Amino acid sequence: MKTALVGIGKIAVDQHVPAIADSAEWELAATVSRHGSVDGVEAFTDMGKMLQARPDIRVVSLCLPPVPRFAYAMQALEAGRHVMLEKPPGATLAECHALDAAARAAGLTLYATWHSRHADMVGAAKSWLSDKMLRALRVTWKEDVRRWHPGQAWIWEPGGLGVFDPGINALSIVTEILPAQIHVTGATLEVPSNCQTPIAAEIAFHHPDGADVSAVFDWRQQGDQTWEIEAVTDSGTLTLRDGGAVMEVDGTVSGQAAPLGGEYPRLYAQMAQLVTTGGIDMDLRPLTLVTDALALGRRVATDPFED
Amino acid sequence: MKTALVGIGKIAVDQHVPAIADSAEWELAATVSRHGSVDGVEAFTDMGKMLQARPDIRVVSLCLPPVPRFAYAMQALEAGRHVMLEKPPGATLAECHALDAAARAAGLTLYATWHSRHADMVGAAKSWLSDKMLRALRVTWKEDVRRWHPGQAWIWEPGGLGVFDPGINALSIVTEILPAQIHVTGATLEVPSNCQTPIAAEIAFHHPDGADVSAVFDWRQQGDQTWEIEAVTDSGTLTLRDGGAVMEVDGTVSGQAAPLGGEYPRLYAQMAQLVTTGGIDMDLRPLTLVTDALALGRRVATDPFED
Repeated sequence: MKTALVGIGKIAVDQHVPAIADSAEWELAATVSRHGSVDGVEAFTDMGKMLQARPDIRVVSLCLPPVPRFAYAMQALEAGRHVMLEKPPGATLAECHALDAAARAAGLTLYATWHSRHADMVGAAKSWLSDKMLRALRVTWKEDVRRWHPGQAWIWEPGGLGVFDPGINALSIVTEILPAQIHVTGATLEVPSNCQTPIAAEIAFHHPDGADVSAVFDWRQQGDQTWEIEAVTDSGTLTLRDGGAVMEVDGTVSGQAAPLGGEYPRLYAQMAQLVTTGGIDMDLRPLTLVTDALALGRRVATDPFED
Repeated sequence: MKTALVGIGKIAVDQHVPAIADSAEWELAATVSRHGSVDGVEAFTDMGKMLQARPDIRVVSLCLPPVPRFAYAMQALEAGRHVMLEKPPGATLAECHALDAAARAAGLTLYATWHSRHADMVGAAKSWLSDKMLRALRVTWKEDVRRWHPGQAWIWEPGGLGVFDPGINALSIVTEILPAQIHVTGATLEVPSNCQTPIAAEIAFHHPDGADVSAVFDWRQQGDQTWEIEAVTDSGTLTLRDGGAVMEVDGTVSGQAAPLGGEYPRLYAQMAQLVTTGGIDMDLRPLTLVTDALALGRRVATDPFED
């Protein structure tokens, strides 16, 4: 299956290109990017020209930042291509609804990917939690923005999500592993005085059974990086560490890793299946929680951020 | 049909109580409010006690501020009551989804009301626009917050929406009268330095046919108040004035007003019909646009607001 990769930045080079290269199902047939390219792959700078020149490419994978993504996705759908979206699937919920409606009307596949849901132990954690009564869940997502987003000015601009860019990964896992639906009841957002998006957030959620659910996201973490979800239940405590790569039950490593090594190989395997079956997978719950938190959150100004 | 009114504040006294009193279908059978009551109507201060004491009341109408609304709505649904929600239907989108799921599971009516959609000329405007090609649409919603929200501190707190509290009325009309779906592409939010919510906003929207769609909301308007939507089409210009009470085409008053005098009588008539047919009406498009604008908007600090 041939795909074009649109937006050759850090995430494309680090994850998408190797995942496609290692896959027996996929072939990277073209790139679209103003500056980036991939050795040995036909490079376009204009999306429209690529769509016209390469009718053999039926799938377009978009990994540019969220704000410009809608226009590219709609252009690809209007040209009859299946579309795969990096997370978050768009800058707003309403534009995601518009893409969903367009894909449905055209009978095309549309896939809002959440790569962290495909971390090794997420499936095992979901299975373990499925028959437990949740008492409390705490997300701790603390990393160094300078290490993971060097020079990415767009993350501080409206629509860039700030610390919710990694935080949405945690919420994509939480919404996957919890049988119940949660919603945001309050949030405190620390916003650098020279930025539009938060560098840290503390979020409280409502859980229908009254479990105490909360999250802390912080982009100012030096040294050890923490991507952890702890779920206290009536029959033990589950901890997902390293963004879902490790699972512990009551402190003991547990569970069986998902097949196929790595998050992005699993995303592309899922996309291949969706295209084959004509499916649409647009689970917007992680983006809904983030949008709600950004809209409802109490903003507190904090120190300016210099990259 | 007996209803209990929950939250006896300005909107209840100004609109809900008279609409129910004037209706042949409805009877105001109880109120729930910490401080307010209605002469001659059984008054409760506790929602649970009302639900227990008055099993004959099958419908609960909630007009308290958006942040506490979810808990009351869920309590009423869990007690098997049909629920009518003042606008906005909740403080977050995800809590609205939870209410929707609960009502569906229980087979109960749930109605997210948008009173401005029932202004006299909104139906006529929708009908006129249905076969036109839109070129541009401009919303101008400028009012004096001190006149319309005296002493309502919650509007300046997270979840209070600020100028989007009236602005969402405009967007409820726009989403009703336009055949196409729009979404927010950018917004500038002027936030008083001592408040959490905007006092003014300028919003740009994407329209699928490329029409130039924008809105300005401002709560600092002295003197004449402006609630206007102007739609320029390939065959004339439609103007809705006074929040939808007056319609003009190319400057000439036009159109036939909806039957039943007034927005709230129409809401209660619609609720009676939904209860009779077991319907659910949870159109979240206005709240989605507002949530998207608050999440995506560029915040600019402005003068502190003193009530």
